[in-house]
Amino acid sequence: MAGSSLGIIYQLTTWGESHGTALGVVVDGCPAGLHLEERDIQTYLNRRKPGQTKIATPRKEADEVKILSGLFDGKTTGTPISMLVQNTSHHSADYSEIANYYRPGHADYTFDQKYGFRDYRGGGRSSGRETIGRVAAGAIAAKALSEFGIHLCAYTKSIGPITISMDHFDQKAILETPTAMPDREASLLAEKYLADCMKEYDSAGGVVECVIDGVPAGLGDPVFEKLDANLAKALMSIGAVKAVEIGDGVEVSLHHGSANNDPFRVQDGKIIKSSNHAGGILGGISDGSRIVLRAHIKPTPSIFSSQKTVNQNGEEIEISIKGRHDPVIVPRAVVVVESMAAIVILDALLVNASCKMENLKKLYLP
Amino acid sequence: MAGSSLGIIYQLTTWGESHGTALGVVVDGCPAGLHLEERDIQTYLNRRKPGQTKIATPRKEADEVKILSGLFDGKTTGTPISMLVQNTSHHSADYSEIANYYRPGHADYTFDQKYGFRDYRGGGRSSGRETIGRVAAGAIAAKALSEFGIHLCAYTKSIGPITISMDHFDQKAILETPTAMPDREASLLAEKYLADCMKEYDSAGGVVECVIDGVPAGLGDPVFEKLDANLAKALMSIGAVKAVEIGDGVEVSLHHGSANNDPFRVQDGKIIKSSNHAGGILGGISDGSRIVLRAHIKPTPSIFSSQKTVNQNGEEIEISIKGRHDPVIVPRAVVVVESMAAIVILDALLVNASCKMENLKKLYLP
Amino acid sequence: MAGSSLGIIYQLTTWGESHGTALGVVVDGCPAGLHLEERDIQTYLNRRKPGQTKIATPRKEADEVKILSGLFDGKTTGTPISMLVQNTSHHSADYSEIANYYRPGHADYTFDQKYGFRDYRGGGRSSGRETIGRVAAGAIAAKALSEFGIHLCAYTKSIGPITISMDHFDQKAILETPTAMPDREASLLAEKYLADCMKEYDSAGGVVECVIDGVPAGLGDPVFEKLDANLAKALMSIGAVKAVEIGDGVEVSLHHGSANNDPFRVQDGKIIKSSNHAGGILGGISDGSRIVLRAHIKPTPSIFSSQKTVNQNGEEIEISIKGRHDPVIVPRAVVVVESMAAIVILDALLVNASCKMENLKKLYLP
Amino acid sequence: MAGSSLGIIYQLTTWGESHGTALGVVVDGCPAGLHLEERDIQTYLNRRKPGQTKIATPRKEADEVKILSGLFDGKTTGTPISMLVQNTSHHSADYSEIANYYRPGHADYTFDQKYGFRDYRGGGRSSGRETIGRVAAGAIAAKALSEFGIHLCAYTKSIGPITISMDHFDQKAILETPTAMPDREASLLAEKYLADCMKEYDSAGGVVECVIDGVPAGLGDPVFEKLDANLAKALMSIGAVKAVEIGDGVEVSLHHGSANNDPFRVQDGKIIKSSNHAGGILGGISDGSRIVLRAHIKPTPSIFSSQKTVNQNGEEIEISIKGRHDPVIVPRAVVVVESMAAIVILDALLVNASCKMENLKKLYLP
Repeated sequence: MAGSSLGIIYQLTTWGESHGTALGVVVDGCPAGLHLEERDIQTYLNRRKPGQTKIATPRKEADEVKILSGLFDGKTTGTPISMLVQNTSHHSADYSEIANYYRPGHADYTFDQKYGFRDYRGGGRSSGRETIGRVAAGAIAAKALSEFGIHLCAYTKSIGPITISMDHFDQKAILETPTAMPDREASLLAEKYLADCMKEYDSAGGVVECVIDGVPAGLGDPVFEKLDANLAKALMSIGAVKAVEIGDGVEVSLHHGSANNDPFRVQDGKIIKSSNHAGGILGGISDGSRIVLRAHIKPTPSIFSSQKTVNQNGEEIEISIKGRHDPVIVPRAVVVVESMAAIVILDALLVNASCKMENLKKLYLP
Repeated sequence: MAGSSLGIIYQLTTWGESHGTALGVVVDGCPAGLHLEERDIQTYLNRRKPGQTKIATPRKEADEVKILSGLFDGKTTGTPISMLVQNTSHHSADYSEIANYYRPGHADYTFDQKYGFRDYRGGGRSSGRETIGRVAAGAIAAKALSEFGIHLCAYTKSIGPITISMDHFDQKAILETPTAMPDREASLLAEKYLADCMKEYDSAGGVVECVIDGVPAGLGDPVFEKLDANLAKALMSIGAVKAVEIGDGVEVSLHHGSANNDPFRVQDGKIIKSSNHAGGILGGISDGSRIVLRAHIKPTPSIFSSQKTVNQNGEEIEISIKGRHDPVIVPRAVVVVESMAAIVILDALLVNASCKMENLKKLYLP
Repeated sequence: MAGSSLGIIYQLTTWGESHGTALGVVVDGCPAGLHLEERDIQTYLNRRKPGQTKIATPRKEADEVKILSGLFDGKTTGTPISMLVQNTSHHSADYSEIANYYRPGHADYTFDQKYGFRDYRGGGRSSGRETIGRVAAGAIAAKALSEFGIHLCAYTKSIGPITISMDHFDQKAILETPTAMPDREASLLAEKYLADCMKEYDSAGGVVECVIDGVPAGLGDPVFEKLDANLAKALMSIGAVKAVEIGDGVEVSLHHGSANNDPFRVQDGKIIKSSNHAGGILGGISDGSRIVLRAHIKPTPSIFSSQKTVNQNGEEIEISIKGRHDPVIVPRAVVVVESMAAIVILDALLVNASCKMENLKKLYLP
Repeated sequence: MAGSSLGIIYQLTTWGESHGTALGVVVDGCPAGLHLEERDIQTYLNRRKPGQTKIATPRKEADEVKILSGLFDGKTTGTPISMLVQNTSHHSADYSEIANYYRPGHADYTFDQKYGFRDYRGGGRSSGRETIGRVAAGAIAAKALSEFGIHLCAYTKSIGPITISMDHFDQKAILETPTAMPDREASLLAEKYLADCMKEYDSAGGVVECVIDGVPAGLGDPVFEKLDANLAKALMSIGAVKAVEIGDGVEVSLHHGSANNDPFRVQDGKIIKSSNHAGGILGGISDGSRIVLRAHIKPTPSIFSSQKTVNQNGEEIEISIKGRHDPVIVPRAVVVVESMAAIVILDALLVNASCKMENLKKLYLP
């Protein structure tokens, strides 16, 4: 099944495996006339690049993007934008032994069950490297959104038990700490926590939060293309995400309606909400408030300590995974979450353009 | 935007408003040759019908379904199945006053912002009655799945702070308690909790859990049509759902990889997992274990206590909502969650039929 | 497979069989704020209604449409518009004998091969009555298009060898002649030709032409959602259509480039074409000229003269079809062609709204 | 709008411009386990390569394809297959002057109207080079189909007034004549006709026919995903195609039902048709007979003789196009038509796998 495309008007199609020649994405439906250059994409890709900190895999990947189509005179033409990143750092030897057994927590077994065999080199298509295409597409979406005053900011909210304090929120820290936490104190604690994990040959999970400001009220299409439904799908489609929350998320079930409802009020002649338990979405449609999302990410399944599993001959064995793996993928997932959110918001913005006769008359009548 | 359809091969399109003539759904792509009768649908619809318990709205709705097409000789023909439920209990007067202001926690404001105006009668399209179409489509999906040994079971896991104990799990209780809890003790506590809510003119939320047994390994299509991604979308598209979890969900971020990974082992010559933190899905593909989902549902936004809001003239006002409203929608949402899950699983099963040459050769070569 | 939906933003989903309870359509994605009433639909449906002339089947069908959702205060709300027509004239007895054999030129055999069995009553889903849903959806599309100065006009161009003369073109005649020809003289000749056919227990085919004026340049999306590609699909999806032409169509292969190219020129400060061999579409995008389409329709396969065929037991038999059948379906197909064209043009107009940053800035920036 | 994708299960997404860095395609949804190598693709691409005969543009393009993903151990893995062809022969100078005016018969004007500007180098996205992606995807589809005994054969049926005789049909000649005609005599006449065209600085059109054998009865999904409807769309989406016919096509309107209906009969215990006016498709579903399609292709719009047009300043001018252009594109379009047909047939085959419970039981029950 063609499962590698997402979006209705702004549509991305990702391709590529961890150890193939290259990975890439085709972005189709990007509106014409957006100023764009490779640097816009590269900035985003650099945020997910491995080998940059002590708590990330020491694999070095240049991850240099090339735009192959869809641009002319520095602007998008409205035609498909094809982007490609060459794979350069293949240590296929590292993976040769995983050809024959199923790594716990990985997709080895399910790919075999589905397709009859699998590209086992580095996880093949189920590798985290697949997110390169998402981030490249997300970079374009974010650039387009910024022209409408819409800005996204994702960050690590927690790693294991270490959670940021919103009182210490420092946006610059997101790009400067190895944890992508916007709280330098919490980041130091998290680094220590991760160092302990690594000593135990173990790994950790965490939570990525993404806030989106400037989204106009009205985006999202009931009843199945609701903004929250598409955000949930987009985030849950990222490998390792096991839960998605909007606004107060899992807390809502504990609150009463009187506490959970956000009253409307008027400020400077504009209707706003006094609180934002809803996380900026009501009835699946943006309400003009900040949109708030969280993705819960499981601990890296590749751990160096010993694990029980089964090989392809159906024999129970004990393994310990080798290679170069992140003890936590949360910091590198931050830009992936931000990208997926940008893609969904832009698509909703484009789709919404024709939702009412009033809009169409502005565009088509003199 | 055409947002009222979901699914690739098994596709439903719902229509209708709370106080319109009727509500319904067209199910297209149902495989031919499935035995089906109206009773199969009605059984499901009865589970979401209002007016049945003290903790549900006293509105009476017959919610009798008619199948208008797609059946012949008691079997599905492979053509669209159109199903319709007449609206019978309109107390439009109850809603006349909400024409002019925005109910907190509802979609009144966002519909107005999106479309320029709204059908304010009973919430119009954003009413919970829209889920009638989902449940009708889910009933068919569940029937089809049962022919492949796939069975779904959803239930209330918690209401407010009252959570079921898995030790007391009693499947029959789901249909027999007013809370749809599979734990009669917890149900009594929850009823008491809700009675207190109602005394305070307030409302409560809760969590619906859904487990699915018998799903073969291999369903779900990387990287955007992953089974968990589509389940997340389907559940988040239900009004009032604010978070979706798969398997251990929000807990995963607190665990180490060594604890979160599910080891594979062999039992009776079959590869299985020793634990199921993953909730039956690895890399977006079913792994043959039980699939486990949770939807977190906010407290009913329609409460009788006083609330601050704004009217359509932009004036701040104080309101108290009248009418007939559920103090908690969780028990009635149980069958909606089960239906959405059934729809997604069936679609994945159908789509998966052509995923490998081996399957196609079984079907097309002599 | 869910094959009964068409369109990206403006999407219709038709359902129903010839002899079921009812037939209908759900139109989703219609922009909010369009004034609409049942009469707008009924006017279109009346143009395809049987039993109105000597050259149409004497079956009487009221074909009265009911709008069940999606309207409020006389305007579309942006939510799905469900429309339904009850089946009233079932002479199922007429069809009982066709249960067991395959009518030549019909879909009996192919439905059986595909689905394993079929609803044989009146052709079931493959009946021409299925077009009721298309026409209802087309009526709405045409109404929306008229607000942008876009007008469609379809008519019978030929029946058998009788072709209209454009010199005699009389638009009123389309609705007044039994042939739907805009040339009263040709219509009389065609009626005589059809009377002869009927005497021979035979049937005839013909050509429907559709012209569309006022379409702005720019609609259609390369390279697969081209306007001509979608028009071709929409027309070819009508039962009995075996060829589709745009502009000069099949003639182009005989011309030289110098004759086939349409020179551009300037008139009143506007760029126009001096000729229109292209039929209003260049590179799959509307060029601002009149769009010209033709659908070639086969003779009605239900004929009363004797035919050879095979029954479901695989025995060769001779049959002669009974019942009430049109000797030519072309006149009743005219409004179906017009409807399908309207649906495609409206969808292209909606989709085009977000094709460039310039448009989006008009809508979303202050 | 994302218009560069086609197909439901077997989906291609093409990208690239005539004078960009490269062109390519992502094929998603190809069933896993198909043996495939670059040579399978290259063979097809070579059939559309320019510079090979006197009647084709003397532009030399290597058009060497690289497969970048989706293969492992010589087999498709079920994941996206990304293919890329570098552009090598840019004579952008040839095109510099067309930056400022609208070539008649080309998409220059409509791209400008739609997107606000255009990549004018060699037609950009509207260039015939875009079909490279289609042919690469078609080569894979044809290879997959051949495993089910389904074989496609497209050829030039006519060039200008020169039409092949089916009595002279010689399949080998398709690849050996410069016209791609399966009739060596007609080919010589066509070459002479084209030589005369070129002397007059003019161009010619023609007809491509495609026959498909071995298609099982049952493919195609009523009522909008009919096999003929999708074939019509696929063929009409090829630049320069202005009409599409199935079976007897435009002839049907002249025949009586008694002549046009194909009687069923029994041969070797199998139900077949005695004739094939329908072209292998009844009610939008394949009937097991040979499928017959024709695409009518307009004369190359790039002609060297003088033409009137308008420049971007709205001034009327006279131009004569320079550069390297085919006097007829029909011979090179043959493999494009064959490819598009293969893509549609394969997709229908895959989609059809889940059309009935019987099929699903074969796959999912023990």
